[in-house]
Order: sequence, then C-alpha cells, then structure tokens
Amino acid sequence: MKLLRWGERGAERPGMVDAEGRMRDLTGIVPDIAGEVLSDEGLARLRALDPATLPPVPEGARLGPCVGGIGKFICIGLNYADHAAESGLSVPPEPVIFMKATSAVCGPNDPILIPRGSQKTDWEVELAVIIGTRAKYVSEAEAMAHVAGYAVCNDVSERAFQAERQGQWTKGKSCDNFGPLGPWLVTRDEVPDPQDLRMWCDVNGQRMQDGSTRTMVYGVAYLVSYLSQFFTLHPGDVISTGTPPGVGLGMKPPRYLKAGEVVTLGIEGLGEQRQICEDDA
Amino acid sequence: MKLLRWGERGAERPGMVDAEGRMRDLTGIVPDIAGEVLSDEGLARLRALDPATLPPVPEGARLGPCVGGIGKFICIGLNYADHAAESGLSVPPEPVIFMKATSAVCGPNDPILIPRGSQKTDWEVELAVIIGTRAKYVSEAEAMAHVAGYAVCNDVSERAFQAERQGQWTKGKSCDNFGPLGPWLVTRDEVPDPQDLRMWCDVNGQRMQDGSTRTMVYGVAYLVSYLSQFFTLHPGDVISTGTPPGVGLGMKPPRYLKAGEVVTLGIEGLGEQRQICEDDA
Repeated sequence: MKLLRWGERGAERPGMVDAEGRMRDLTGIVPDIAGEVLSDEGLARLRALDPATLPPVPEGARLGPCVGGIGKFICIGLNYADHAAESGLSVPPEPVIFMKATSAVCGPNDPILIPRGSQKTDWEVELAVIIGTRAKYVSEAEAMAHVAGYAVCNDVSERAFQAERQGQWTKGKSCDNFGPLGPWLVTRDEVPDPQDLRMWCDVNGQRMQDGSTRTMVYGVAYLVSYLSQFFTLHPGDVISTGTPPGVGLGMKPPRYLKAGEVVTLGIEGLGEQRQICEDDA
Repeated sequence: MKLLRWGERGAERPGMVDAEGRMRDLTGIVPDIAGEVLSDEGLARLRALDPATLPPVPEGARLGPCVGGIGKFICIGLNYADHAAESGLSVPPEPVIFMKATSAVCGPNDPILIPRGSQKTDWEVELAVIIGTRAKYVSEAEAMAHVAGYAVCNDVSERAFQAERQGQWTKGKSCDNFGPLGPWLVTRDEVPDPQDLRMWCDVNGQRMQDGSTRTMVYGVAYLVSYLSQFFTLHPGDVISTGTPPGVGLGMKPPRYLKAGEVVTLGIEGLGEQRQICEDDA
C-alpha cells in the first residue's frame, strides 16, 4: 500500500495510490497519515478499502511529506562504508545519530531552499523508516513489527553550517525544506527486504549517487532496536538511515547546489522526488 | 502572566496562575498553551480575563510541561564561560546548538528516568525561551518581539551516552523525561531583563549550581536572531540557553544521579521544579 499526503503546506489531506497508480483521496476516512493510522490495525483498515471507490486527488495537486505529526526526525550518520570514506571519516563502532528539525520536512517535489549565506548545499538520497507503533527497549527481533513503512528522503545538508560553524551538525541539517519526504509511505509488507533496494540521485540529469541499501552498515532492524534503547520511538517518528557515496562534499573538487539546478532521486519501489533549487528569500 | 498545563500526560489542559498564586483552569477558553495562543494577540486575550472567575485547578493535579505542541527543542551548548571551563572546553566563537527530542519533554515535577545502562545521568538548570511568533532571518533588535516568555528547564544529560557513544550529543540529551519544563511559562512582560536572573539547582538539598543568567555568553536576543538565520522558529519552539557551573560532570570526582535522589531547581521569578530519580522500567 502506498500512502500519501496532498494539498497546501500545513493543510495536507490523506490519500493513497490505487492499482492503476492514480492518487485517491482519503479525506473523511482517516484524519491524516499519522499516529494510530500507522499501526498494523490502522493500516489493515485502509487495506480493506477499495481505492477505486475513492474520489481522485485533483490533477496537479501538490504532494506533501508522506507522513504527518512527525515528532522526531532522527538521522544516522556515516552508515555506508563508502560514504564515510569519501567524507574522510571511518565507519563508527556504533551508529552516529543526530536530529533534523521537523520544521525542515517538506514535500518530495518542493524546492530546495538554499539558505542565505550558503555556499555548500549538498544532496543525500536516503531510505527513511517510518515508525508505526511505540517502541522502547525492543530487541532486533521485535523491531520490524514497529515499522509502518518506508519512504525516500533527501537529507539535504549545508556542509559549512554542519562542520565549520562549531560543534554539532544540527545547523547544517535543519534548514527549511532540508527534509523532502515521499512521494509515498510504502507499507512494510510491500518491501520484503529493505536491505536490498537500489537508490540513486541525479543533479541536472547527471548520476551522482548510485547505490544500494545492501551496503548499509547498520540495517533497519538494528537501528530501530538501537534507538529504542535511548528513547521511546513514537508513531510517525522518522529514521533516515544514511546515504551511499556520491555526495557533493566527496567530489574532487567538491560540488554544491546552486539556484536553478534540479535534483532528482529515488529508491527502488518507493518512488521518486524532484526538487528545483532556489535561493531562500 | 503565568501560564501552565495540568492533567494527565498527553491530555494536559491549559491553565493560569491568579493574583493569589492559585492555579486556574482555562479549559474551553483556549485549546492549549500552544500555537496562536502564544502570540502577543493571543496573550493579550488571556490577560484581559479575570482569573478569579475561572474554576480552580483540582488540588494535587499533575503539572505538565508549560507549553504544548513543541516542534523544536533547541539547546545551546557551553553558553556559560565557567561551565565550559568545568567541562574542559573553551567558549565557542559562535553558539553551539543541538536538539533534544521533543519526546523527552515532561512536567516540572515528573520523575527523572535513569535509562537502562546509565551510569552518568546529570542535571543542568537552564533558562528556556518559548517562541511566540514565527521568526526567520530576524535581527537582534527584532528578536525579542518573537519571544512569548520564559520557563525553567532541566536539561538532563547522560554524559556517557552524550560523549562516549560516538559523535553527536543527541543520545545523551533525548532520553524519556530528560526535559522537565515549567512550572510556568512566564510571559516576557514580567521578565524585564532575562540576562539578570538568579538560578540554582540542588541535589538532596545540597546546592550544586548557583549562578545567574548574567554570565551567559550569548544572550536571548542574540540566540533568537542567530537561530533564525538557520531555520524558521515557530510558535511553541523552545530554546534552552545553556547551564552555569556546578554539574556532576564538572566535579572531582564526577558525581551522578541515582534512583531515589531528589533534584530541585529554579530560576528567579520563574518558579521551581522537583524531580525524584527512578530507574527506567
């Protein structure tokens, strides 16, 4: 099942994709793609619907982030060995985690806003995991039962803000529109092996990242269990699991985004995103 | 004006303090101490009420965090010169920022939960700033107009998770109940100078921290302006502005919290918190 949110920013409505790939409106059926709707029971109720009976989403509607009510947006750093190497860093002995501000979350095709003063805005295609039910101190064996599904994420990053402006990475990860999420939340039953998905990112049509979740160091089940040792994971929390090689920072010389450039990215089975870069007003 | 939230966790109701210091119920008058209610117009509507006409909050009611709908919980690191010194670090040339998970936020008198495997749970009394209106790219001169008010925060921290478990500080700052906030949101008109407030923290009645916001390196107006250069600040966002000296980490030898210990802390004019430490179940 592919779930989505559509409409104006901050007023998104729920929707789903039908068998022909058309978007259907879930307004009035569930309040949002969020909270209880993400539990196995909530998803089962949606699965029981015949999408063909639902009204179509209006032509040209904006897609919002595919999940609402995100409490935590947790990112995993250096989780692909080759990406760690291109960043000049080694693979950590346990996961590196940081937070992206939830105010950075946006729709999959919203513009990338290049912040004032930015010289080093960069791309990172990532597999995002969306939590479906509360998880605290869960084992790796129990972990997947707490996952609602998956989505494409662009973990947009400003490298100077991240690494040259004192300490923690927060500043370079949390700028407005630095978290395109979607187009769909693909439920976990449709992703039998999240550790075997092709992923790619192009800039102006040129392939920059071409990887697979196979080379992830710490996999999804491990990460959900690991994070749940530190804090409760709640429905709608997002875990973005790190990026494979090919980011601008890793090039010689480094290569960053400018207004007018187009970023397209996708993950096998999870859909594609397309963002035009704009200078933030 | 002192605003508060009371009732069971996750189902808090709004309230305010009357002239005699009694808590009054705002149920039905505003939906929550959150969002639009935090704007100057929203606060003016509350100020126009006669609290004596409102029903009292039931005796013994739990206090929740004094603001709801927190989108971002931003913390400033090493923002007191003496605390940086006791941590063996120098004052940074610009603010160090990191995020605390909003799932860590709790009421001012809720227990401190010592996470499984923790040996180094520590206290940090901090002045928290609550944003009242959207702020992006604002100057230092404009910044204070975006502040709704202030509250006491205990930036509870697990030092091993923070510093010995790879990279970023997130793990040591975001555990459940690591963000007691309140008792009140004191509106900014009642805090003429946020840079001249005494603050203190006791453990089992012994004074550990005894400082003043006078020794803050980067003040409130600077921080609001600075953060707004990186991302939009939204109503209900919280900025915890750092801690003065006297944390357990800085002692020789270091001294950390154990189940049964009692932490009390407060800031001049903003009220007090009291937490009993418990091992997390």
